[in-house]
Amino acid sequence: MPSQESKYLETLYQDWAARMAAEPEMTMEGLRSLFDEWEKATLEPEEVTYKSDNVAGINVIWALPVGADKSKVLLYTHGGGFAVGSASSHRKLAGHMAKALGTTSIVLDYRLAPENPYPAQIEDAVAVYQALLSQGIKPENVTTIGDSAGGNLAVSSVLKFRELDLPLPGSVIAFSPWLDMALTGDTLATNEATDLLVQRPILESMAEMFLGESGKVDDPLTSPLLADFTGFPPLYTTAGSVETLLSDSQRLHAKATAAGVNSTLSIVEGMQHVFPFLAGRAPEADGEIAKIAKWFKAL
Amino acid sequence: MPSQESKYLETLYQDWAARMAAEPEMTMEGLRSLFDEWEKATLEPEEVTYKSDNVAGINVIWALPVGADKSKVLLYTHGGGFAVGSASSHRKLAGHMAKALGTTSIVLDYRLAPENPYPAQIEDAVAVYQALLSQGIKPENVTTIGDSAGGNLAVSSVLKFRELDLPLPGSVIAFSPWLDMALTGDTLATNEATDLLVQRPILESMAEMFLGESGKVDDPLTSPLLADFTGFPPLYTTAGSVETLLSDSQRLHAKATAAGVNSTLSIVEGMQHVFPFLAGRAPEADGEIAKIAKWFKAL
Repeated sequence: MPSQESKYLETLYQDWAARMAAEPEMTMEGLRSLFDEWEKATLEPEEVTYKSDNVAGINVIWALPVGADKSKVLLYTHGGGFAVGSASSHRKLAGHMAKALGTTSIVLDYRLAPENPYPAQIEDAVAVYQALLSQGIKPENVTTIGDSAGGNLAVSSVLKFRELDLPLPGSVIAFSPWLDMALTGDTLATNEATDLLVQRPILESMAEMFLGESGKVDDPLTSPLLADFTGFPPLYTTAGSVETLLSDSQRLHAKATAAGVNSTLSIVEGMQHVFPFLAGRAPEADGEIAKIAKWFKAL
Repeated sequence: MPSQESKYLETLYQDWAARMAAEPEMTMEGLRSLFDEWEKATLEPEEVTYKSDNVAGINVIWALPVGADKSKVLLYTHGGGFAVGSASSHRKLAGHMAKALGTTSIVLDYRLAPENPYPAQIEDAVAVYQALLSQGIKPENVTTIGDSAGGNLAVSSVLKFRELDLPLPGSVIAFSPWLDMALTGDTLATNEATDLLVQRPILESMAEMFLGESGKVDDPLTSPLLADFTGFPPLYTTAGSVETLLSDSQRLHAKATAAGVNSTLSIVEGMQHVFPFLAGRAPEADGEIAKIAKWFKAL
């Protein structure tokens, strides 16, 4: 039974869905404004400080828990279909993660589609990763992490690092990742009635903006489910059981495991898309973050 | 000459004005979402932690600078015409103020109009003030502070404390306060061309929502310029020279000074409405905050 507190995210998503349905021609500014309300779901993590910064030309927010080990960094790529969401909307979630894992977080305001389609987002993640390494951060002390489209980037950026012969990060964490621009997952249909936010039409629209002129549906860098995961870092994937994107997480885990990757999949009953946004508010999110912290510290 | 960095707020306000003009029937949800973008103007103050809390039934965000003197509190009422804005939109500004003044800040998500017209906002400020006092915070260690409509509340709540025979706070700080629901200030006309956000129609609409059924234009608790300021705490008022609401600040200062109040008015050349939002980004905001800190520490 989902907790009473977890209903906050259900209500938020129902509100968004109603507002988008009431205004089908909502502008990108309006959509970005609306999705920045994601931050409301998360309570402030205590004992975490922040710093606005610019790294490799990308605006970022650092989440710096008091007493944090600054040699360890979560490189956080936010969700929002590559087109919406921001470092601001994900600041608190990244703060909770840094605090639980004993690291810092750097949340990227990477360039957004449709103004900047693929591969701008991966390029920005690569640029920040290289900047971290050149600042002396060890690759094994970096974790790429993201949710939804940002969960895609957390995976695809590592594929890109490999293509560029960069050393790979120590681990990868994905919350409700969207990994298949062709939208072939079973749960898109089977969870259509239970997912209160993510439906095929919004994914189709976001895939089109993301892919632009140069991106292709069948490229492992846009649809990482197509990748060869041999040698991929330890991977933790979290999803909610009622999500339309659940099968992306399941397929990622199956494929990574088959390739010999240390892969963990955690599906939490009754939870919506990116339920870790409920950090500080609902036990499902806090429990999942505690599980990830335990996994991370045992790596 | 306004700094290059200060143009960020001009661009934000021009963008908002264009979006509101393009969508005259924008819903309250849409307006609230838009005004929450205020937070973008402010960079993260470093070495400040936060805590989500509920005090006297009001959701709040505490801004707690590392090593802060927790016996001193800025009771922050955010701006947004009593109808929009939030603790989230003002978190960073409140953090900058707490850090500069050597205090903590508590930012209130007070009830908003039109769902909750006057006197809900003042009631919430009173409830939190009383809760702070009952927790052992000394009244002289509390500063009421706010911007725009929240600057009104920073002043009117003190008038209400007096009416309720509560001990008064140690000081009051107002950024670009809106103090006159009758809209009789000269600069509403003389600065009409230079103020990029605040124009008579939006003020009229917000005054109507705020006053509701029971509020009156000529009540000192809705239009604090009508109040008797005898015995009022030390007062610092900041405004930009190009604002339509400038004369509210000027009239407040004149009236308070005439009543013998220790009142300081700082008008910064070329600055827009609530330019302290540019904290961490533009020298005008950081310079003004440093001035206020100096004033505060000399009280």
